[in-house]
Amino acid sequence: MTKVGVIGAAGFAGAELVRLLLRHPGFELAVVTSSSDAGTPLPQLYPAFQGLTDLCFIEHSDPAVYDCDLVFLAVPHTAALALAPELIARGIIVIDLSADFRLADAAQYERWYQTPHTAPGLLESRVFGLPELNRSAFEHAARRVAAGEAVLVACAGCYPTATSLAAAPAVGWSRGLVVADALSGVSGAGRGLTRRAHFVSAQENIAVYNAGSRHRHTPEIEQILDIPGRLVFTPHLVPAIRGLLSTVTLQLGPAGAAVQMDTTQMQAHYAQFYAGSASVSVLPAGGEAKTAAVTGTNHAHISLAVNQERGVLVASCAIDNIGKGAAGQALQCANLLLGLDESTGLEQIALPS
Amino acid sequence: MTKVGVIGAAGFAGAELVRLLLRHPGFELAVVTSSSDAGTPLPQLYPAFQGLTDLCFIEHSDPAVYDCDLVFLAVPHTAALALAPELIARGIIVIDLSADFRLADAAQYERWYQTPHTAPGLLESRVFGLPELNRSAFEHAARRVAAGEAVLVACAGCYPTATSLAAAPAVGWSRGLVVADALSGVSGAGRGLTRRAHFVSAQENIAVYNAGSRHRHTPEIEQILDIPGRLVFTPHLVPAIRGLLSTVTLQLGPAGAAVQMDTTQMQAHYAQFYAGSASVSVLPAGGEAKTAAVTGTNHAHISLAVNQERGVLVASCAIDNIGKGAAGQALQCANLLLGLDESTGLEQIALPS
Amino acid sequence: MTKVGVIGAAGFAGAELVRLLLRHPGFELAVVTSSSDAGTPLPQLYPAFQGLTDLCFIEHSDPAVYDCDLVFLAVPHTAALALAPELIARGIIVIDLSADFRLADAAQYERWYQTPHTAPGLLESRVFGLPELNRSAFEHAARRVAAGEAVLVACAGCYPTATSLAAAPAVGWSRGLVVADALSGVSGAGRGLTRRAHFVSAQENIAVYNAGSRHRHTPEIEQILDIPGRLVFTPHLVPAIRGLLSTVTLQLGPAGAAVQMDTTQMQAHYAQFYAGSASVSVLPAGGEAKTAAVTGTNHAHISLAVNQERGVLVASCAIDNIGKGAAGQALQCANLLLGLDESTGLEQIALPS
Amino acid sequence: MTKVGVIGAAGFAGAELVRLLLRHPGFELAVVTSSSDAGTPLPQLYPAFQGLTDLCFIEHSDPAVYDCDLVFLAVPHTAALALAPELIARGIIVIDLSADFRLADAAQYERWYQTPHTAPGLLESRVFGLPELNRSAFEHAARRVAAGEAVLVACAGCYPTATSLAAAPAVGWSRGLVVADALSGVSGAGRGLTRRAHFVSAQENIAVYNAGSRHRHTPEIEQILDIPGRLVFTPHLVPAIRGLLSTVTLQLGPAGAAVQMDTTQMQAHYAQFYAGSASVSVLPAGGEAKTAAVTGTNHAHISLAVNQERGVLVASCAIDNIGKGAAGQALQCANLLLGLDESTGLEQIALPS
Repeated sequence: MTKVGVIGAAGFAGAELVRLLLRHPGFELAVVTSSSDAGTPLPQLYPAFQGLTDLCFIEHSDPAVYDCDLVFLAVPHTAALALAPELIARGIIVIDLSADFRLADAAQYERWYQTPHTAPGLLESRVFGLPELNRSAFEHAARRVAAGEAVLVACAGCYPTATSLAAAPAVGWSRGLVVADALSGVSGAGRGLTRRAHFVSAQENIAVYNAGSRHRHTPEIEQILDIPGRLVFTPHLVPAIRGLLSTVTLQLGPAGAAVQMDTTQMQAHYAQFYAGSASVSVLPAGGEAKTAAVTGTNHAHISLAVNQERGVLVASCAIDNIGKGAAGQALQCANLLLGLDESTGLEQIALPS
Repeated sequence: MTKVGVIGAAGFAGAELVRLLLRHPGFELAVVTSSSDAGTPLPQLYPAFQGLTDLCFIEHSDPAVYDCDLVFLAVPHTAALALAPELIARGIIVIDLSADFRLADAAQYERWYQTPHTAPGLLESRVFGLPELNRSAFEHAARRVAAGEAVLVACAGCYPTATSLAAAPAVGWSRGLVVADALSGVSGAGRGLTRRAHFVSAQENIAVYNAGSRHRHTPEIEQILDIPGRLVFTPHLVPAIRGLLSTVTLQLGPAGAAVQMDTTQMQAHYAQFYAGSASVSVLPAGGEAKTAAVTGTNHAHISLAVNQERGVLVASCAIDNIGKGAAGQALQCANLLLGLDESTGLEQIALPS
Repeated sequence: MTKVGVIGAAGFAGAELVRLLLRHPGFELAVVTSSSDAGTPLPQLYPAFQGLTDLCFIEHSDPAVYDCDLVFLAVPHTAALALAPELIARGIIVIDLSADFRLADAAQYERWYQTPHTAPGLLESRVFGLPELNRSAFEHAARRVAAGEAVLVACAGCYPTATSLAAAPAVGWSRGLVVADALSGVSGAGRGLTRRAHFVSAQENIAVYNAGSRHRHTPEIEQILDIPGRLVFTPHLVPAIRGLLSTVTLQLGPAGAAVQMDTTQMQAHYAQFYAGSASVSVLPAGGEAKTAAVTGTNHAHISLAVNQERGVLVASCAIDNIGKGAAGQALQCANLLLGLDESTGLEQIALPS
Repeated sequence: MTKVGVIGAAGFAGAELVRLLLRHPGFELAVVTSSSDAGTPLPQLYPAFQGLTDLCFIEHSDPAVYDCDLVFLAVPHTAALALAPELIARGIIVIDLSADFRLADAAQYERWYQTPHTAPGLLESRVFGLPELNRSAFEHAARRVAAGEAVLVACAGCYPTATSLAAAPAVGWSRGLVVADALSGVSGAGRGLTRRAHFVSAQENIAVYNAGSRHRHTPEIEQILDIPGRLVFTPHLVPAIRGLLSTVTLQLGPAGAAVQMDTTQMQAHYAQFYAGSASVSVLPAGGEAKTAAVTGTNHAHISLAVNQERGVLVASCAIDNIGKGAAGQALQCANLLLGLDESTGLEQIALPS
């Protein structure tokens, strides 16, 4: 059994990791930390764990953390910068859910996050965590782990995951601007007590925010898809707990020119592209991506529509922002590093609706 | 007092018209019809009217309809085709909320709605109902009404209203594709009992549908904005009762070229454009459109973001799909025809949140 | 025009008062205060007011408050204790929405609220604000106001309003325990940023709290209904913005004994009881109270079921906790004090659903 | 592997059984039926199953049903009456989720359900399915199954499960009326397309229905708790997909008399009562039952409050109406009949919130 810890287990992604790890056959959840809830039993904060665990939150700095073989960092950005170097130095595998090591270029991180990058030395060897789009990197990393090396994974963000999965198989054919309008449930903003997340503000409300590529996930998506300066990304907040759907519009030829490929052919192409990926389903003809079908899971559903006359592909990807968009993906990455099937402990099925 | 009737008052838009007309100082609600609920007192279907009215639904064909001075048609498409000619022939002003008379070209209607247009003769003289974008047509129509003529208004659809208000002031500067991703609450799909509208299917769900300009509102938006073949329109369904937000991405110059105009200048331009329109607010710097601020009202909130480097404007417009997107707009049109202030009876303020 | 101020206008009840007062024909909203948002324009906090007012929040202590003829105190308990004496001393009518002057007995206040009552001298002459159950007190108070006296009204709480309206007409016939289980939307807990009010905690959740007459509204309900020590009151939190429904079970005879009166007779009795009250509707046979029918309004809907065999009446009352349960009732009380029709400015109709 | 079928798999409880059975280590899901969707692949109706199963719905009458070892009847009442006798006759274990065999007395069934009971012969040997309250019956039934007998289980309803679990440990001490006010999410009303279940009607609405012991679950609860004629049961509908919370008020002594036992002692008594039941958690001091903590699971959370002065216990039990209230409980019963651990395949943990 691999001994694992969750740093920042009081947040939504951290708590979801706890939920998954309590039922994982190959991992033993040994440590959960919280800077603000140290000493509190898990079920007191999250009654869903009532009767299922005796763990209490401890401090991030508790020495017990260093007894772990693998640690998930479910902390805000900058906190991972502070924690990762020491963990790696002690030979502990680090799966980082924060934004700190996602951007390959430290200068770009500093521009978008307005804070110094204090561990640029870790960037080169870190693995970017979106396995469907960089499987070979994980195969290589698993060999490093098998050889005893402590690997750092920088998991993709929630918007980048859905947006990139939607666009990746076709982006190479596209021209000009790539427009991604994404819709997220409220948990995406985290557990912090903000006015925007107050039930009375969030319910029965549909809102745009950070329109026009001002959101920090913009450079991350451009990095994954290799489309520097071409993305127009606009996120929206909708009244759901979980769920994230990103709709990407790709112009497949010159503006106004029709295209030959039809929706069915595009679906076949996507299905082929994701053939080895258990987490991704390309919906068949008539299918339209919806988040309810993946809530609580590590699955991504992609639906496609080619408008031949207008020469565009509209691709939508639905995920659970806390699942495939955070905790599920982190666990998938951990499985891969340790040579397990990538779906181990991720077999949950969404509640039928 | 102008005597008015609501044909199709059992639907959501019809019931909202009832709500507004019961408090309108210049209109007397004389008749409400429903093909399926004839004989039923209004409050039995909508307990919100308990104690406020003694009206019962009557049949569409009830002769009492012809005693009205003005009639709202809150019926599905094709039903208005069947009803409008007779009403107009009898000299009754018709405010049509259906899609039947929106498209100026009957052939285009027949292509998108897959049904014959049986009253093309009414198309030429009908007034398109989106007063903020065609005020002079309403001034002319009011003179026709004053002269005793029965005018037909074809009110804009919900998606076209929000999308066009967002794009109109800047669309003339744009090039290439116009991408509009819109988000609607569930009432937009009407009162019909469908699986999609079942609470268990709709709640905690974010879904895309009719992606890639397959929705019937596509030609209507292209007609209003005069951008034939350039629109990529994709609607989404989100778990709210009411509310519709449309985000439009406009490329302001050649792809990849930066632009000079900044967000503040764009806001000033939009504010100028809508200076005479009480229903439209262009949000100031920092403002982000959200539907909760306009629910239950005839208002539209527009927020803007220019990304100068990428050369794009992202404009979002939030409305109540049943308010400014249907019943509110219809009442606004009726007010204008009769020479009243356009906001008469539309002074409601959204519940603060 | 009566010049009025809202103290604590940033909270939900305060903001609702603003919404109502901006459309009230007899009151001029002159002042809005907020201890934490002084200097902020109203629409910045509540975009629903965009374009509708130029008011900015000022401090509670701003001298402009004393220029008002009437002031609403939409502040937490103890804050009203601090503010009311000075306002009354200056001859300003005070409509208090807090709990500070509701309980006639200062000692009982001190026991339940665990804080000293610093203005017991105002208790004797204060008017309890639930006009449907104490009309004569308002008639008397209106004469005091007409004579130039500054009257203090202590508006009933949200749970007490719904529970008492449901029970009052029949409680005199009841024996033994009175069981009231009440369900409230999240706005009832106020605008404070608490974990319980976070969207992720509140949505898709049904919770009990303060079960078994531990809630502070318990003595207030017992005072109104004159049933000291007989109430078992248990509130519940449900995922709605607004809405409060209280279901009261009254044993009409000895336990286990059947009763003669049937539901229809009981409805007639209730209808008679509330004959002069425009805000209360007793639903006819088959009607079942639901909050959606009264959201955004000052109405109360009551449905009744007598189980003759078991000898019980189950009475349910639905209100908007921010409307009839707070701001609406406060405005109704103000209207009555000033000799206006009690429904003035309260004519809103709920959105049909 | 036990070969199982789900009759009525298109409904909510049936689909949840499918979800659970696809991951059950001891059962093989061989057959799913639907009278209206025969021929349709499961994922077409429920996209949550996309990529996870190749099963298609077949007719109830398909001979493949008779190849099963065990069959779940997730059908409306009367349909189970029609199906169960033949299945039992063929030696197939039947776990019935409908109401048809719950009431021990066929006459009482006929009175409350207004339809003839056509299989009264099965009533005597049927096992009532609420294992926490009748463990010995399941031990006996498991021996019958081991001996080759086809046993029929009549699973408890959703309201009876939560209400009885809340009341059972203390009801023996109670006097007079037992008042149960229950709150249910919308899925409790089933997948039928009714106006009440339309999103626009259900969202932002809190409603009472069938007040005063008119709901059909009344006699079932009285049967379980052995309190004939003493229950006042009133259900409420709240805007949640899943979740059911029942609050029961028990008078522990003569009306108005104080009691000695305090909340802590009561919690200890309940914990002792449910000591062997993995599905039931009695919350510790300060705990308050909420449905979010059990959504998607087979767990029940119970919170207690004794008001010593008023002599009452208020006990609340939260379950997932589709989980412990239907499909989860049915699977738990099946596990017990077959000698498996009762939690097999029911290890899901609710999403933390």
